[in-house]
Amino acid sequence: MSAAGSALQHAWSTDNPVFAAYVFYSGVLVLKMLGTTLLVVRQRFAKKVVMNPEDRMDKNSKVLPTGGDPDVERPRRAHMNDLENIPAFWVTGLLYCLTNPAPALAVNLFRAYTAARIMHTIVYAVVPLPQPSRIIVFVVGVTITTYMAISTIIHFA
Amino acid sequence: MSAAGSALQHAWSTDNPVFAAYVFYSGVLVLKMLGTTLLVVRQRFAKKVVMNPEDRMDKNSKVLPTGGDPDVERPRRAHMNDLENIPAFWVTGLLYCLTNPAPALAVNLFRAYTAARIMHTIVYAVVPLPQPSRIIVFVVGVTITTYMAISTIIHFA
Amino acid sequence: MSAAGSALQHAWSTDNPVFAAYVFYSGVLVLKMLGTTLLVVRQRFAKKVVMNPEDRMDKNSKVLPTGGDPDVERPRRAHMNDLENIPAFWVTGLLYCLTNPAPALAVNLFRAYTAARIMHTIVYAVVPLPQPSRIIVFVVGVTITTYMAISTIIHFA
Repeated sequence: MSAAGSALQHAWSTDNPVFAAYVFYSGVLVLKMLGTTLLVVRQRFAKKVVMNPEDRMDKNSKVLPTGGDPDVERPRRAHMNDLENIPAFWVTGLLYCLTNPAPALAVNLFRAYTAARIMHTIVYAVVPLPQPSRIIVFVVGVTITTYMAISTIIHFA
Repeated sequence: MSAAGSALQHAWSTDNPVFAAYVFYSGVLVLKMLGTTLLVVRQRFAKKVVMNPEDRMDKNSKVLPTGGDPDVERPRRAHMNDLENIPAFWVTGLLYCLTNPAPALAVNLFRAYTAARIMHTIVYAVVPLPQPSRIIVFVVGVTITTYMAISTIIHFA
Repeated sequence: MSAAGSALQHAWSTDNPVFAAYVFYSGVLVLKMLGTTLLVVRQRFAKKVVMNPEDRMDKNSKVLPTGGDPDVERPRRAHMNDLENIPAFWVTGLLYCLTNPAPALAVNLFRAYTAARIMHTIVYAVVPLPQPSRIIVFVVGVTITTYMAISTIIHFA
């Protein structure tokens, strides 16, 4: 078996602690992102604000375009921010595993990213906090993804 | 060759029927998602509603912000719902293959998810149907992704 | 070791030039997509247009819903178009590597896709150009993703 074959096995093998951590935290982020949908749905039910005529719950329901209700907007924007960031982490983290990073560094990057994104949703849409709390957790996430992407590009350039 | 190496080969090998099914249905979902873009474009041409001044087709074209035209909004929201759900499936399905699920279960989850998302687009933006049709197919999709994510997290915890 | 096992190693091995190119260009696209966020942030600071009350920079800041300011909207829509297209490329490119494509073809598809998406952002939000410049680079990207997805589906059908 070639050295390259071995290298692949180590990188995306489930007994590589870096890869196993990637899989675990990516799964957590899937649940976190789907959970943010629930925050939007909760506000839609509470305010009876729907997007389409066929979604009316009763005659008090309001059909409003995107942005029509501020209480729905807040979790919707938190969710939107997830869509802008988390899929990028999923692919970057997977590819970063191929660069054979130091396990302690890589695992802590995955952990910090996941914590930052959970905090982002909390300070944005669960218990809105004054800035710069949301900016800080946002920048932590973007910085980690950027670092992993640059490491990967350099490794494969 | 180590047992771990073998495990990886079985999980993401193209002769693993679970993984081959994942690849096939993920490809179908790529085409489905790109196809929803065409539904939006079709309405933009039909209504001559564009997003930017430079996109005007003729002097009857209207430049409207997001949400400005209900016939454009409907497929756009279907597409938006895809963005909120399908990338999460792509990563979750890939990682779920690593948990060595029963092939019959896994293949049918991938199949049901793909069918649910195709139905979602149809009942939302092709032949709008009364609720709860869209809610049902939406919940089927989210439930499958959630199940696969939880299975993966437990397996790697 | 089975032939199938070997096939996997060649497909997602870092010494497969197709896969190495996929990893490299996917990383570039991560940075490009995160960079588009900066274009949005730049306009928000320049116009002092924020999304949430807690984001106000000073008393001249305006809290506007999505679509409220055309200069913010332009990079935001470029970013939105990225979200609709680039995650689909990430998964499609990864799966397309499994079809053992001709390296010269595959590497040039990844390269052309990446160039098209960088051009898309430039002509949309950096130096807005008249149509059909944006349509052309958009269609190049969608065509490449569609081609790779169809190739993958046929290979695994």
